[in-house]
Amino acid sequence: QCSLDAIVDKKIKDALTGLELNPSAPAKRISCFSVVNSGKLSSCPAGSVVTGCACGYGCGSWDVGGGETTCHYQCNPVDWTTACCCRLT
Amino acid sequence: QCSLDAIVDKKIKDALTGLELNPSAPAKRISCFSVVNSGKLSSCPAGSVVTGCACGYGCGSWDVGGGETTCHYQCNPVDWTTACCCRLT
Amino acid sequence: QCSLDAIVDKKIKDALTGLELNPSAPAKRISCFSVVNSGKLSSCPAGSVVTGCACGYGCGSWDVGGGETTCHYQCNPVDWTTACCCRLT
Repeated sequence: QCSLDAIVDKKIKDALTGLELNPSAPAKRISCFSVVNSGKLSSCPAGSVVTGCACGYGCGSWDVGGGETTCHYQCNPVDWTTACCCRLT
Repeated sequence: QCSLDAIVDKKIKDALTGLELNPSAPAKRISCFSVVNSGKLSSCPAGSVVTGCACGYGCGSWDVGGGETTCHYQCNPVDWTTACCCRLT
Repeated sequence: QCSLDAIVDKKIKDALTGLELNPSAPAKRISCFSVVNSGKLSSCPAGSVVTGCACGYGCGSWDVGGGETTCHYQCNPVDWTTACCCRLT
């Protein structure tokens, strides 16, 4: 009986370890940060994406390019552009 | 001993397969895209949500309706409205 | 043979239950909502983050403070500020 226990326990443990499951890992959540840049463009670093943009001179006209990673400010004159960058952590 | 191995291995495998675990599945991440529309409204497709909006004529006044899926541009005159749509992929 | 089955099945079941795996849990998704406030500031409740902001008077100049949870409207005059708040559900 004891050898059976040991055999079965070890096999189960190995099988689960092999799955690299980590249920105790903290739940994923969204985290965001701002990247402010002078001029018309502001980009999010790799691993994050643009969810919104802000611009100087009260301008609310922008678009997102560069594979959804770069805020592009459309008004004139220009002073700064901010990208709101988000990712899962 | 060998039949024990086979029995136990098979049982473990069946149990794990039944759980439809797929630890090798690529980690989830946020992906976003823009939906540009002429006029005051721009909506995100099902499965994605609005995280921000942009509007023509430098307008930064908007609200989100339609169950958080539609950008509504509040300024006048109007030319285009863009919804920044995000989801997990 | 039957006792072996029972032993092994129980051990596997215990091992998996101990992992608190819940593969049938609904897939996570992003959900967002708006928090509208009069004045220059609007904050997202705990557990959610700002992904974009909207402001009155057509203003598109804003920044995000308070640990990425508060929209700050930069134009004058001021009437309202909206925070677009998102989280995983």
